[in-house]
Amino acid sequence: MNEARESRFTKARLEAFSDGVIAVIITIMVLDLKAPDDDSLNSFMKLWPAFLAYAISFVFAAIYWINHHHIIATVRRVTAAVIWSNNVLLFFLSLFPFATAYMAATRMSPFPTMIYGVVQLCCAFAFGALSWIIDQQQDQDAVLRQAKQGGIWKGRVSQVLYALAIPAAYFNPAVSIAIFVTIAILYTVPDLLARQAPGKMR
Amino acid sequence: MNEARESRFTKARLEAFSDGVIAVIITIMVLDLKAPDDDSLNSFMKLWPAFLAYAISFVFAAIYWINHHHIIATVRRVTAAVIWSNNVLLFFLSLFPFATAYMAATRMSPFPTMIYGVVQLCCAFAFGALSWIIDQQQDQDAVLRQAKQGGIWKGRVSQVLYALAIPAAYFNPAVSIAIFVTIAILYTVPDLLARQAPGKMR
Amino acid sequence: MNEARESRFTKARLEAFSDGVIAVIITIMVLDLKAPDDDSLNSFMKLWPAFLAYAISFVFAAIYWINHHHIIATVRRVTAAVIWSNNVLLFFLSLFPFATAYMAATRMSPFPTMIYGVVQLCCAFAFGALSWIIDQQQDQDAVLRQAKQGGIWKGRVSQVLYALAIPAAYFNPAVSIAIFVTIAILYTVPDLLARQAPGKMR
Amino acid sequence: MNEARESRFTKARLEAFSDGVIAVIITIMVLDLKAPDDDSLNSFMKLWPAFLAYAISFVFAAIYWINHHHIIATVRRVTAAVIWSNNVLLFFLSLFPFATAYMAATRMSPFPTMIYGVVQLCCAFAFGALSWIIDQQQDQDAVLRQAKQGGIWKGRVSQVLYALAIPAAYFNPAVSIAIFVTIAILYTVPDLLARQAPGKMR
Repeated sequence: MNEARESRFTKARLEAFSDGVIAVIITIMVLDLKAPDDDSLNSFMKLWPAFLAYAISFVFAAIYWINHHHIIATVRRVTAAVIWSNNVLLFFLSLFPFATAYMAATRMSPFPTMIYGVVQLCCAFAFGALSWIIDQQQDQDAVLRQAKQGGIWKGRVSQVLYALAIPAAYFNPAVSIAIFVTIAILYTVPDLLARQAPGKMR
Repeated sequence: MNEARESRFTKARLEAFSDGVIAVIITIMVLDLKAPDDDSLNSFMKLWPAFLAYAISFVFAAIYWINHHHIIATVRRVTAAVIWSNNVLLFFLSLFPFATAYMAATRMSPFPTMIYGVVQLCCAFAFGALSWIIDQQQDQDAVLRQAKQGGIWKGRVSQVLYALAIPAAYFNPAVSIAIFVTIAILYTVPDLLARQAPGKMR
Repeated sequence: MNEARESRFTKARLEAFSDGVIAVIITIMVLDLKAPDDDSLNSFMKLWPAFLAYAISFVFAAIYWINHHHIIATVRRVTAAVIWSNNVLLFFLSLFPFATAYMAATRMSPFPTMIYGVVQLCCAFAFGALSWIIDQQQDQDAVLRQAKQGGIWKGRVSQVLYALAIPAAYFNPAVSIAIFVTIAILYTVPDLLARQAPGKMR
Repeated sequence: MNEARESRFTKARLEAFSDGVIAVIITIMVLDLKAPDDDSLNSFMKLWPAFLAYAISFVFAAIYWINHHHIIATVRRVTAAVIWSNNVLLFFLSLFPFATAYMAATRMSPFPTMIYGVVQLCCAFAFGALSWIIDQQQDQDAVLRQAKQGGIWKGRVSQVLYALAIPAAYFNPAVSIAIFVTIAILYTVPDLLARQAPGKMR
């Protein structure tokens, strides 16, 4: 019983820390949306790649925050493996501000867009690994298992899409951007249409 | 019962995350109040537009934090719609540092002040949308409904004022600034005069 | 009872938000401790005013965090006055990174050191106002009242010292720095010597 | 009883504040991983020292976060000594972004790498001091004592290694980096192999 309390406490702090890190990541990304020094419409309009990059990254950070919440909710014991796979995920998420700024600074040219795709793919793999480690702890009933199938399916599809977005950026960064937007829609629209608690997101 | 606990937990984390994001937003805005490299009174005095912009944005971020608290307190179920309309609000709030820096860097010239007004209007609409979605969940008793009327009235008035502040900035940014200050007073002074828990703010 | 719960909840969130803001303030100040681009001992040594300014501000932010904790712990009802006087305190605390950077960038020349003193004095007054508003709510027993006397005494002394540090900086910034260090010692050493929970700090 | 509650509350806030500070530290370090303005592979590759420095610092910040959690969990009474030794630890941890940026900006040249080692050593001593102060409060049973032996042993070894890394950087920074990586492995791999809650980390 004492054990259980200790474990739950650790979980609360794991979440609080992860929330803090994600909240800072999502917010400092906006620092790369640098205000122009002059008030011309032209200077403002030149910001569109930075704005688009920021908006995409914000949506992804929000999706990771929601999905992180869902998988941590199923944690039974906070083991070293859970903590460190969580840290690996936070590490790759913390590269979002860099990758976003890089893509924005180069106005979405091919190579930086590829790097952005690589960071996204690393985050997706890290999230998959954290999910997998947490799932090992569970003896899940049928409902949860079913929900998980949906989540795993979505995770696999998005990993394949990220993997496609990387070479696509070499030929046309706009295609990669379109793929990122598609993945974002895949993770948000179905839940919004379902009009219920986003319990099935993975 | 388990459902309820799950739901309440989600709400706590929704709040914690939103608090974290707003706390970071409110604080990183000060980074745009760049310290001059020389110690002349003149360089210091030149900071006044940046300081004024920062002070106004700080007050608005604080108002949003308080009002966010009040509407989240009435949430019954944390649905995907609640989470995503909350994310939309956080997204527009996260543009505050940019809009504030832009207005400050150009010493409150017309176009950046208009952009600042647009960001404010987007935040007001996003907040209205989040309120509306949360209200749909409720069967509210008379007292709450009455309180809401006050809140909605204030929300509508401020949305109209923001909409007026945008074209006004084109002719005279000082008028827009005066409108922003008026809205801030509208949201703070009545509650302070009421000398009670700010339960009626919306 | 419902009232009480609502009120307590608000208090928890007031603290969480204040903690978040202070945690960000204390941490982003270090961004002004800019790493030199070359590896010479000389460039490194030139950082000492920035380092000293950072260390002083860190200690003050920590003292405010501790004392904030103590006064918020005595709050009975989170009124609009409590929230807004807390926001005023957070506003002035949020000027610490600016004032610290300004003092550091000018290598502690007189005028910026005066500004730093002004920010400190504003924080001290804002803290005094928040304390006073919270005290109005209480019917305090003798022990608390006694403790408060100690706190108020310390608060008054430090306000006078800040007020002296401002003109002193005009003649010799080192005197002001010495006054700031003295105040910091006044707030930390007695509690450490008392070897108990820092319950009496104000 | 009232005492106990007060004390526990303080502990929760001590943790929340420390988590907030560490979350911000870990995240703002990435701001020093500055995105190149051009999209050449060459500019990107030049980032490797900054990236390596960031990755090492991220892992150390994560280790401190975990270990901080473990020692705070054993706190009985939050005394002034606990609070201030915790603040000293947070102060040295807050120098991580500076030391990391310094090492990165100079592409890991000897002197900045030595400074990085000094910051690491200060953190290790501050952590040791905090541990020692908390241990004074305890009458620990055998199991805890045993666990502590492991923790203290690890702490001592890493302090010696940090102390060696500082002069080593003078001759060859790569040796210091190797020592830092070794310490990181010492703190992560055994717990991962043990496949259990990381309760024994110190």
